[in-house]
Amino acid sequence: MAMMQSSKYAAYPVVDISDRTWPDKRITRAPVWCSIDLRDGNQALPVPMSVQEKIEMFKLLIGIGFKEIEVGFPSASAVEFQFVRTLIEENLIPDDVTIQVLTQAREHLIRRTFESLEGANRAIVHLYNSTSTVQRDVVFRKNRQEIKEIAIRGTALVRELREAFGNKGIRFQYSPESFTGTELEYALEVCQAVMETWGASADEKVIVNLPSTVEMSTPNIFADRIEWFCRNLSDRDAAIISVHTHNDRGTAVASAELAMMAGADRVEGALFGNGERCGNLDIITMALNMYTQGVDSRLDFSNLTHLTEVYRECTRMPVHPRHPYAGELVHTAFSGSHQDAINKGMKARTESENEVWCVPYLPIDPKDVGFSYKAIVRINSQSGKGGVAYVMEKEFGYSLPKWLQPDFGLVVQAIVDREGRELSPEEIRDLFSREYVRLERPYLLKKCHISWEDEDPDRNDEVATTITSALQEGEREFGFTARGNGPVDAFVTGFIHDSGIDFIVSEYSEHAIGHGADTQAIAYVKITLPDGTVSYGAGIDSNISLASIKAVMSAVNRLDTQAKK
Amino acid sequence: MAMMQSSKYAAYPVVDISDRTWPDKRITRAPVWCSIDLRDGNQALPVPMSVQEKIEMFKLLIGIGFKEIEVGFPSASAVEFQFVRTLIEENLIPDDVTIQVLTQAREHLIRRTFESLEGANRAIVHLYNSTSTVQRDVVFRKNRQEIKEIAIRGTALVRELREAFGNKGIRFQYSPESFTGTELEYALEVCQAVMETWGASADEKVIVNLPSTVEMSTPNIFADRIEWFCRNLSDRDAAIISVHTHNDRGTAVASAELAMMAGADRVEGALFGNGERCGNLDIITMALNMYTQGVDSRLDFSNLTHLTEVYRECTRMPVHPRHPYAGELVHTAFSGSHQDAINKGMKARTESENEVWCVPYLPIDPKDVGFSYKAIVRINSQSGKGGVAYVMEKEFGYSLPKWLQPDFGLVVQAIVDREGRELSPEEIRDLFSREYVRLERPYLLKKCHISWEDEDPDRNDEVATTITSALQEGEREFGFTARGNGPVDAFVTGFIHDSGIDFIVSEYSEHAIGHGADTQAIAYVKITLPDGTVSYGAGIDSNISLASIKAVMSAVNRLDTQAKK
Repeated sequence: MAMMQSSKYAAYPVVDISDRTWPDKRITRAPVWCSIDLRDGNQALPVPMSVQEKIEMFKLLIGIGFKEIEVGFPSASAVEFQFVRTLIEENLIPDDVTIQVLTQAREHLIRRTFESLEGANRAIVHLYNSTSTVQRDVVFRKNRQEIKEIAIRGTALVRELREAFGNKGIRFQYSPESFTGTELEYALEVCQAVMETWGASADEKVIVNLPSTVEMSTPNIFADRIEWFCRNLSDRDAAIISVHTHNDRGTAVASAELAMMAGADRVEGALFGNGERCGNLDIITMALNMYTQGVDSRLDFSNLTHLTEVYRECTRMPVHPRHPYAGELVHTAFSGSHQDAINKGMKARTESENEVWCVPYLPIDPKDVGFSYKAIVRINSQSGKGGVAYVMEKEFGYSLPKWLQPDFGLVVQAIVDREGRELSPEEIRDLFSREYVRLERPYLLKKCHISWEDEDPDRNDEVATTITSALQEGEREFGFTARGNGPVDAFVTGFIHDSGIDFIVSEYSEHAIGHGADTQAIAYVKITLPDGTVSYGAGIDSNISLASIKAVMSAVNRLDTQAKK
Repeated sequence: MAMMQSSKYAAYPVVDISDRTWPDKRITRAPVWCSIDLRDGNQALPVPMSVQEKIEMFKLLIGIGFKEIEVGFPSASAVEFQFVRTLIEENLIPDDVTIQVLTQAREHLIRRTFESLEGANRAIVHLYNSTSTVQRDVVFRKNRQEIKEIAIRGTALVRELREAFGNKGIRFQYSPESFTGTELEYALEVCQAVMETWGASADEKVIVNLPSTVEMSTPNIFADRIEWFCRNLSDRDAAIISVHTHNDRGTAVASAELAMMAGADRVEGALFGNGERCGNLDIITMALNMYTQGVDSRLDFSNLTHLTEVYRECTRMPVHPRHPYAGELVHTAFSGSHQDAINKGMKARTESENEVWCVPYLPIDPKDVGFSYKAIVRINSQSGKGGVAYVMEKEFGYSLPKWLQPDFGLVVQAIVDREGRELSPEEIRDLFSREYVRLERPYLLKKCHISWEDEDPDRNDEVATTITSALQEGEREFGFTARGNGPVDAFVTGFIHDSGIDFIVSEYSEHAIGHGADTQAIAYVKITLPDGTVSYGAGIDSNISLASIKAVMSAVNRLDTQAKK
């Protein structure tokens, strides 16, 4: 297009690693997770969290199961400093959780960072400086050697202060910030120098965190970089390789996943990917992606609805209705064929008690993340009969017989087509009631008495039933007494005789709805006239025989409604 | 966690393709794009689009540059049928655009689909049936052969109706729906049978669309499947391989990108990934990902703000503030170090007129997608002096001198720390004004007259200036006349003499603000007292000399404010 000049941009450089192995790898266990909600996430909020909100978020993160939590950049502002102090002074950090604090590689900031940690039992001090070409040239105006020296000096100071700090609880993390904009071999050179300065070893590993500070390439290239880096590190055992992916190209989750396959041990991210610009890796999505492959993520997201609520309150950020696993539209199906397939898949699962989850269109059992099956189906013009039947059954316990579903499906579709919107389950039920149950014209059943004769010599072994009915048709009132081999048979015989309308009951089905004292019966009938015309009706009553007779009456009345349409 | 049983899920099967080639490929040109906003997207809306809204969306899509647009499932509902009729009867389809219509492989639906196309010049008939293991077993209860025959019969009928349709404008697309749940070699077998039935050839290609109907694996496995499929297709030239990725694992964009590297020619997706559950591939993100790698995407997203507005109105769906490229927080930077780097990067770009975009933290020039630089920087407790200086310059044209920035940075930070929220640019400016410009106590400058003596024998070549001032300090009024080698020098000499406060002007800077008749001067000064105390002030006046004198007066007054703090 004339408006857009792609020539203004350059392609990201590839990595020389055609013997890469990551595409054959799988993710078989969880990484070490580090939550950055309280630092990177909070940093990018239009309204940053208050100390009280940070404490609430911190508790939420602990409940999920995070063992490493970056809690702030204490040297950058008074609020962040105060929050770290509060965590330590009020003893809010569980014994199995390590807080992490970020600092630039500058002397006064490093010293201030250590002041914030006074009295802490454990902490990860996370040092960074920017190493990319553009940052070196344009922002810092320093050459490779000078930038590397910033990292080395910072590392040496952290090491010195840690010794002065007087305990072994301080671990060390280094990030070559803007790693994705840094020449790969130079990033390795800086990290190697940092590890040497620290005296990294298998017993005293340094966390080497490789961020896609800006996401600049397809995720496979990021994975290539991680594999290349791991392979060329002189002492791989002395490092925990961590990734921190951003989402500028919408592929932060994929980048972190492929990076794990490429050798990363540790993953930093935030709930819902909260963070600068397009955000960070969404840990919820990545962890549940593992979970639905049978891998224990070691994080508990069994109550995503509660989590979402706390997240929204603390961050004042929205969660998109289509957000993987957690969005409000995620466990729904709009298409009729989808709804039908889900319906059958759910039923097959119940019947077979098959352990492996395999329901069409639902990659996860909504229950596992605290969602309800109730929300799965909504009815719109694409839903079809399967969806309608599913809603009637799941929401209200009406098991519409197969022979009735197409007729009701058409009724629903006509309404949604006309109204151009989705119908709620309640609207669907009301529509069913109006169309099949509450039909009192032209014939109103005013009274109906049923009696059984246990021994009737004329009818062999069958129980004969006698019906005495009172009906009204417009102004005319009439009644009959008739016998048959059951209440429906008796009623139909009498009604045909008196009304002159000829038909047979060609389908019949009934079941109980509700339970206990409220139990009622619902009966469904299909009637067929000699000319082939069919009609459907339903009836509800605590007496199952009366429910059936009402259903017949509705079907007859519906003949009239149909004729008028 | 006890709550979550990952053993309920099974790992997705891998593809036997260790000699895959896609990881070494790059995306160097745009695919054939197909928008599915009006079908898959619309299908999943709580409130589906009205015909009027669909027309608006259709026009938007054409404006973006889509040449293939799936407009509906006309046999599924009256609204969808009507919309296709409207497009055809009202001549709304440009000559270079082909509409696509979806149909299940069922006779009455296929016939109805062709009825909807009556009078169209061109169309893609998109036939699908579900091929996955679970759909075969649980939903359709048919074996492989029977499912394949559904596809073959459907294809044969489309072919027959196309001939009856009487023109060559009908192209054919087939999707093995639930491809990701289908055994790869069986999917290939079905597609191959469909292609044979159609009589596919290099001149009469069939679009073979391979959907991740449910996203079930990491994106590399999807790419492996695509490469395997392309490689094993007996007549690769007779097919256009299309992908349609869903976003259940948050990696729809990555899956489509790697699939293109693996051989896909065509990509289906929607604006903002609108679609069932977690949605589809977001075409905006994928196209702009290409664009920022120097590849012409052949789609115009130069006005994302307008596009977002139309999208929101038609779909009633939100766009997340962190949505790649289009979200309202995407072209902002909250962190001070980010803001400082952006500031320097933007300046370097202006100075060097370098053609390749390379600004830290901004993977795209916001202008390219219709965003403004103005929105880039917001000020919160993480912003630092660089961000503050950037806002003052970009929003109001105040070029704060470097020696003033740290002092103002601290002032801003104290406020945002206290208030725990971000400050607007206007608030920043007001704060600057209150702190440095509008200071009238203890000293109020009531009058100031400046005169120049061109030739002064006592002062060699320099121009001597005489200042006559009237000031007020509380109740006391006083005044002086003093001379110096410039107005500031003269004023300071006189003021020191009369006030008894000793200081020197240790830094000075001024520039014009505004333009035309509104042009004013702003002067910044730093004063230093004999004990090392420093103070800063600024003054604004249409007269540059007066602006400077006001700045000195402000700096002196600020000594008092500082002392009180």
